[in-house]
Amino acid sequence: MIRVAIVGASGYTGVELYRLLANHPHVEITCVTSRQNAGELFADVFPSLRGRTELVCDPVEVEIVAAKADFVFTALPHKTAMEFVPGLLAAGKKVVDLSADYRLRDAALYEAWYQPHTSPELLAEAVYGLPELYREKVRPARLVANPGCYPTSVALALAPLLKAGLIDPASLIIDSKSGASGAGRAAKVDSLFCEVNEGFKAYGVGNHRHTPEIEQTLSDLAGVPVMVNFTPHLLPVNRGILSTCYANLKEKSDTARLVELFADFYRDEPFVRVQPKGSLPNVACVRGGNQCDLGVVVDPRTQRVIVVSAIDNLVKGAAGQAVQNMNLMLGFDETAGLNVIPLYP
Amino acid sequence: MIRVAIVGASGYTGVELYRLLANHPHVEITCVTSRQNAGELFADVFPSLRGRTELVCDPVEVEIVAAKADFVFTALPHKTAMEFVPGLLAAGKKVVDLSADYRLRDAALYEAWYQPHTSPELLAEAVYGLPELYREKVRPARLVANPGCYPTSVALALAPLLKAGLIDPASLIIDSKSGASGAGRAAKVDSLFCEVNEGFKAYGVGNHRHTPEIEQTLSDLAGVPVMVNFTPHLLPVNRGILSTCYANLKEKSDTARLVELFADFYRDEPFVRVQPKGSLPNVACVRGGNQCDLGVVVDPRTQRVIVVSAIDNLVKGAAGQAVQNMNLMLGFDETAGLNVIPLYP
Amino acid sequence: MIRVAIVGASGYTGVELYRLLANHPHVEITCVTSRQNAGELFADVFPSLRGRTELVCDPVEVEIVAAKADFVFTALPHKTAMEFVPGLLAAGKKVVDLSADYRLRDAALYEAWYQPHTSPELLAEAVYGLPELYREKVRPARLVANPGCYPTSVALALAPLLKAGLIDPASLIIDSKSGASGAGRAAKVDSLFCEVNEGFKAYGVGNHRHTPEIEQTLSDLAGVPVMVNFTPHLLPVNRGILSTCYANLKEKSDTARLVELFADFYRDEPFVRVQPKGSLPNVACVRGGNQCDLGVVVDPRTQRVIVVSAIDNLVKGAAGQAVQNMNLMLGFDETAGLNVIPLYP
Amino acid sequence: MIRVAIVGASGYTGVELYRLLANHPHVEITCVTSRQNAGELFADVFPSLRGRTELVCDPVEVEIVAAKADFVFTALPHKTAMEFVPGLLAAGKKVVDLSADYRLRDAALYEAWYQPHTSPELLAEAVYGLPELYREKVRPARLVANPGCYPTSVALALAPLLKAGLIDPASLIIDSKSGASGAGRAAKVDSLFCEVNEGFKAYGVGNHRHTPEIEQTLSDLAGVPVMVNFTPHLLPVNRGILSTCYANLKEKSDTARLVELFADFYRDEPFVRVQPKGSLPNVACVRGGNQCDLGVVVDPRTQRVIVVSAIDNLVKGAAGQAVQNMNLMLGFDETAGLNVIPLYP
Repeated sequence: MIRVAIVGASGYTGVELYRLLANHPHVEITCVTSRQNAGELFADVFPSLRGRTELVCDPVEVEIVAAKADFVFTALPHKTAMEFVPGLLAAGKKVVDLSADYRLRDAALYEAWYQPHTSPELLAEAVYGLPELYREKVRPARLVANPGCYPTSVALALAPLLKAGLIDPASLIIDSKSGASGAGRAAKVDSLFCEVNEGFKAYGVGNHRHTPEIEQTLSDLAGVPVMVNFTPHLLPVNRGILSTCYANLKEKSDTARLVELFADFYRDEPFVRVQPKGSLPNVACVRGGNQCDLGVVVDPRTQRVIVVSAIDNLVKGAAGQAVQNMNLMLGFDETAGLNVIPLYP
Repeated sequence: MIRVAIVGASGYTGVELYRLLANHPHVEITCVTSRQNAGELFADVFPSLRGRTELVCDPVEVEIVAAKADFVFTALPHKTAMEFVPGLLAAGKKVVDLSADYRLRDAALYEAWYQPHTSPELLAEAVYGLPELYREKVRPARLVANPGCYPTSVALALAPLLKAGLIDPASLIIDSKSGASGAGRAAKVDSLFCEVNEGFKAYGVGNHRHTPEIEQTLSDLAGVPVMVNFTPHLLPVNRGILSTCYANLKEKSDTARLVELFADFYRDEPFVRVQPKGSLPNVACVRGGNQCDLGVVVDPRTQRVIVVSAIDNLVKGAAGQAVQNMNLMLGFDETAGLNVIPLYP
Repeated sequence: MIRVAIVGASGYTGVELYRLLANHPHVEITCVTSRQNAGELFADVFPSLRGRTELVCDPVEVEIVAAKADFVFTALPHKTAMEFVPGLLAAGKKVVDLSADYRLRDAALYEAWYQPHTSPELLAEAVYGLPELYREKVRPARLVANPGCYPTSVALALAPLLKAGLIDPASLIIDSKSGASGAGRAAKVDSLFCEVNEGFKAYGVGNHRHTPEIEQTLSDLAGVPVMVNFTPHLLPVNRGILSTCYANLKEKSDTARLVELFADFYRDEPFVRVQPKGSLPNVACVRGGNQCDLGVVVDPRTQRVIVVSAIDNLVKGAAGQAVQNMNLMLGFDETAGLNVIPLYP
Repeated sequence: MIRVAIVGASGYTGVELYRLLANHPHVEITCVTSRQNAGELFADVFPSLRGRTELVCDPVEVEIVAAKADFVFTALPHKTAMEFVPGLLAAGKKVVDLSADYRLRDAALYEAWYQPHTSPELLAEAVYGLPELYREKVRPARLVANPGCYPTSVALALAPLLKAGLIDPASLIIDSKSGASGAGRAAKVDSLFCEVNEGFKAYGVGNHRHTPEIEQTLSDLAGVPVMVNFTPHLLPVNRGILSTCYANLKEKSDTARLVELFADFYRDEPFVRVQPKGSLPNVACVRGGNQCDLGVVVDPRTQRVIVVSAIDNLVKGAAGQAVQNMNLMLGFDETAGLNVIPLYP
């Protein structure tokens, strides 16, 4: 059994990592850390875990984590993450970092959207952990940057079309909607039940920080620099991201042909489910699972293609994908611990 | 006091019409009809109305309605509506019809998206009741076709830009999200609480029946035929539509300038609230009110404009706009009975 | 027009007071105060009010409020309220205080459940503002303590039975459920959307601070000291309290007889709606309205009576009742400004 | 691998059985039946299962089921169930029936609350499958009646107190709240999203059919006939039952002592989690898991004990408990396939 640590375990991604890893056949969770809950029973922080853990939250310190674990998930806020990860690597640990700090290969781009980078030397080494697109780079990696939730939903939606050169990269419009757990577990008025429930709004229009990450992957796929309109919205659900992606077709096509293209592209992927023609994804059908569901429609009148993708932002958009990356990095079956059927309803 | 009837009162639009009209200074509700609840107290159908109505539901018959009321709101399903409205007009009544049956001016277009039209001769006379755009035609009308909820949210979002010729009409992409009351009060598995709650999905992609209605109004505004991509989604909230509209700017602009354009365009409109720069609409802020909130952003990188509009689908998207039309048709103050502040939270 | 102030306007009760008072025929809102939003447009704090207010939030200072208003609603946290109210009274203002500070007549009891009282001399003067039970005392009052939301729902549910001496006061069990707005608008992890949504729990079992307030009123009604079990729960809805109250009947009765007793008791009350036999309240049917809906059932097997009451905690449980009290204190029609039909759905 | 069938698989209990059994180490699902979806892919009925099943829905016929499976879960409506189960037993199958048809040992009682019983001869043989209380009877059974969701939550809450003789059985008041999936997946207006969302109501007060089932088990525990007040309510959540149970203590006690009593009583139970003193259950903490969480409080003022229990109505209240019963009947580890950590948030 490999000993694993969850650093920053008191957020929603932390408890979700625990849920998935606790049933993983090849690892043992030996350390959970939390700044604000240090010294408390982890099961007191998350009573859903009662009976399944006796761990006490450790403070967020490299030495403690390094002593207790061989493999580390860092679920820290950006900026905090890059202050922590280098020490773990220096201690010889493998790391999946769930923050944004190592996702952009270009330090200048990172600094334009975030803040000065304190370990830019690691950016060349860090691998962007979207297994469906970068699997072979993930396997040998020491540091994997786990993708953002929105970027995961968008990259998987558009990869088949961009790879095949079927759409105009300049025409991309991405309208995404995320459940409230995407905003984390921090106490903020905007995240209160009464502010979110029965509401719906766009936010970060034109300036959301996931934009450069989305564009980095889409550019890789297209082979040319891609610039998109990305508009996130806040959904009154706990979990789930649905991205509706619009693109102009370069040449006439139809729904049946593109559904087949998608089905071929993802034929061997254990976690991508291309819906049959006429069927479209619903975030309710991926709740708690590591699936990405994709639906494709061609509008015959406008010759635009609409791709809809649904993931659970805490699973394929965070903790599940992190475990998938760990499986690759440690040579396990890629689906180990992830064989979870979504909870419906 | 004008005597008004609500035909098809046992749906969500019916009870909403009752709520608004019951506090209207110049009308008295003298008749409510319901096929399935005929003979029952209306307050037994909707206990929210207890203490405010003693009306018993009448069957849906022209003679009964014509005898009891001077002005009629028909909140019937399409097809049923056009079988009922001609009789009311023949009896000398003024009608606001909330179905789709008289919204499209072109009978062939109607028949392509719906079914054969049984009173096509009325299409030329029927006025499309979006007061902000067709106010002067509404005033003298005998038959007003109350706009659909999605089309209302879209037309108000795009009117200033299309009128000013600032955007490319061929580039329009409309991503709309509606609360569950938009699907009506019929017993269907897809509308069950457990199917909608904690879910989110697109539906009717590329073939929703509101598409031709949207295009009719946008074409009026643009002065050329407009074809759009319109993608509706189902939101797990009771009320509210948010439409996120994307268009390519014909020439370089910025957010400040377009916010000002919108503010000018709607300066005298009592129900349109253009949000200040940096602020975006939320369906929670129009709940129960007849407002349409609009937010505008120019993405400086792509030179696309994003307009976000929020309405309550049952008020500005149905019952409220119907009352607004009645006010115009009967020469009342346009805001009579509609001076409702949204319920927050 | 009477000039009124809302002190502590940036909470949910504040915006609800604004919504109701803005349509009140006899008052003008001339001052809103907020500690954290002082200097901001009130409509920027609550965009639902855009177009309906130009007020800027004032700081929470007695002098400012006293200069601008004749009648004051204090919607401050307990403890803060009692530091503020005496100054307003000294300045000759009439006050409805929505905190707990003046609800308990016995200072020692207050201090046992809260903290030292800084103006105990006002407790004898303050009138408990539940109009259905203390109407004549409210009319001449200078200071009205607006009842708590739970106590309102409970007192109205049990008054007819206690007054008639039909139930054993020692047998009272009160199981209450409140929507999330009852916890206020403060940023707390426990109030986050993801913590409340899809959840349900009891809290404060055996020690909720509304217990002595409930017992004070029930003791008045029974004419003997009453002690109850009161268990509040947190409902994943924005608004609404439902209280299910259980009591042992002193002598055999049945549902029909007790429904009639309730109907008689509340016959002239504009805001209490006794449901017909076989019908039970739903918080959805009082949303946004000042109604209290009551349902009564006798279990013939156990000879216990179950009374279910539903109110909107922000209206009859707070702002609406406060306006009702103001109407009495200023000699207006008791229903002025409160003629609101609940929003359904 | 044992071949199992799910009869009546198109309801919420059916899909939940599939979710749990698909990951069970010792069984294979070889047959799912559905009257209305016969001939359809089961994954088209529930897209959450895509990629995990190729089964086609069979019609509901004994011969088909008997030919395909060794062990059968019948998730049919009551009345339909008892027409189906005898045939399965005659064919030599073991059955867990999730309907109400075999729960009451007394046919007359069944007939008083339901309808004539068509296989009363099986009532003596059927075992009430609440493993924590009747484990040894379940093991050898051929027919297990899976308990109702409410009765499960109540029996586990009160068992320690009744067994120990600490409470007065005549004083029991049970206030229960259930999520909407408890009403099933049938298309009914009352179950629509807009009717349930933002609402809360009591129903079936004094006459809910789970009452005799609750009383049967409590009477077993108390050793004397027990009669209760049971009031169910409808919660706007997908999953979860919380029961708040009130009883008069026979002699003075306190919270600490009773928490210890509960902890002792359930010490070896894998699925019952007694919360530490000061902590109370939340349905959000058992979502998707087979746990029953229990919290105990003694009100020192009234000397009543309040026990709060939380289960997922579809898991411990239905499918999970059914699998637990199957494990016992087939000699598997009782927790096989049920090692699921609840999904939070």
